[in-house]
Amino acid sequence: MRSRLVLGSASPARLATLRRAGIEPEVVVSGVEESGVSADEPAGLARALARLKAEAVAADVADAYVIGCDSVLDLDGTAHGKPRDVEEAVSRWRTMRGRSGVLRTGHCVIDVAADGSRQEVVEVAGTRVRFAALTDEEIEAYVATGEPLAVAGAFTVDGLGGPFVTGIEGDHHNVVGLSLPLLREMFTDLGVAWTDLWARFGRGQR
Amino acid sequence: MRSRLVLGSASPARLATLRRAGIEPEVVVSGVEESGVSADEPAGLARALARLKAEAVAADVADAYVIGCDSVLDLDGTAHGKPRDVEEAVSRWRTMRGRSGVLRTGHCVIDVAADGSRQEVVEVAGTRVRFAALTDEEIEAYVATGEPLAVAGAFTVDGLGGPFVTGIEGDHHNVVGLSLPLLREMFTDLGVAWTDLWARFGRGQR
Repeated sequence: MRSRLVLGSASPARLATLRRAGIEPEVVVSGVEESGVSADEPAGLARALARLKAEAVAADVADAYVIGCDSVLDLDGTAHGKPRDVEEAVSRWRTMRGRSGVLRTGHCVIDVAADGSRQEVVEVAGTRVRFAALTDEEIEAYVATGEPLAVAGAFTVDGLGGPFVTGIEGDHHNVVGLSLPLLREMFTDLGVAWTDLWARFGRGQR
Repeated sequence: MRSRLVLGSASPARLATLRRAGIEPEVVVSGVEESGVSADEPAGLARALARLKAEAVAADVADAYVIGCDSVLDLDGTAHGKPRDVEEAVSRWRTMRGRSGVLRTGHCVIDVAADGSRQEVVEVAGTRVRFAALTDEEIEAYVATGEPLAVAGAFTVDGLGGPFVTGIEGDHHNVVGLSLPLLREMFTDLGVAWTDLWARFGRGQR
């Protein structure tokens, strides 16, 4: 068991997800420039960005587990991140309403030993998300809250957008930005039982 | 639009679900005795209990929307509420691990006019929940946290149990205990646009 658990993401939703699951990570944000990265398809993009973020943070720590994640909404094979402005958010929702997309989140966990040697696990999870048939008025009201502008895919499932997702297929946490069951499996692959993380990195343990 | 929005449930998870969706309800807990209610199948039980809870609260208010909910885990047609003790929680998890059940939540919304006349909508939503193949050690550690004893079905998806649910089919919020997309539809049936609730009952509006 390492002495530090580091979340390499500025996302409050990812931090809240870990906290609700009883884990209190340190947050270290990488300076990765996302716009310089491209990939043939959305899953590849999410995977590449998750690795870049985790590796940028892992370079500066030792005796630590580092978690990097990146999420995109896959609509018909095209990756959508945060909308640029109000117009794009409204236009996206007019396309999305009444249909579905796949939220793809890349996860990279790097086990950095005290001597700096590393073991890395990378996985991508996809969760199908079905969007409610919002009225034009609901779209305008939702975009006016500002929330869609701050998030990949222009929606949340755990915030104001909750009532606008009629259902999902897969892990809910993956939609929020960090799949807890996948993370449990990745830690198992690294030889760490998830429930042992509670004792070492649980809230109030540090 | 009524002047009050009342959640007839003591569940902190239901309150948190509404709050994250931007709605701040009043909480009024009914004194319904659940053990006195029976039904032929889990969905019928969830429906009957949701109605009882909402009607008990609605009897004491006017000019209000009242929301009542009840959740059970349907495993092969049998309804499971909160486990009685540690032994039952461990035994349930040994049955549940690696397979799936359906979390059924009954929802009752009563629109109580200023003169006390009522309009009532009742719906049940089911979400399939797939449980991870926990080791015996993980089950013991999870039950030792006490969380499984406090919740219907002996698991949470939004708490410590998050990593132990590998995926769902349907609305996530329904598993937590209150389906936001279903509630949006029920309010639409009552002639109320969900986004209008933000202005009247949003956080900081009262």
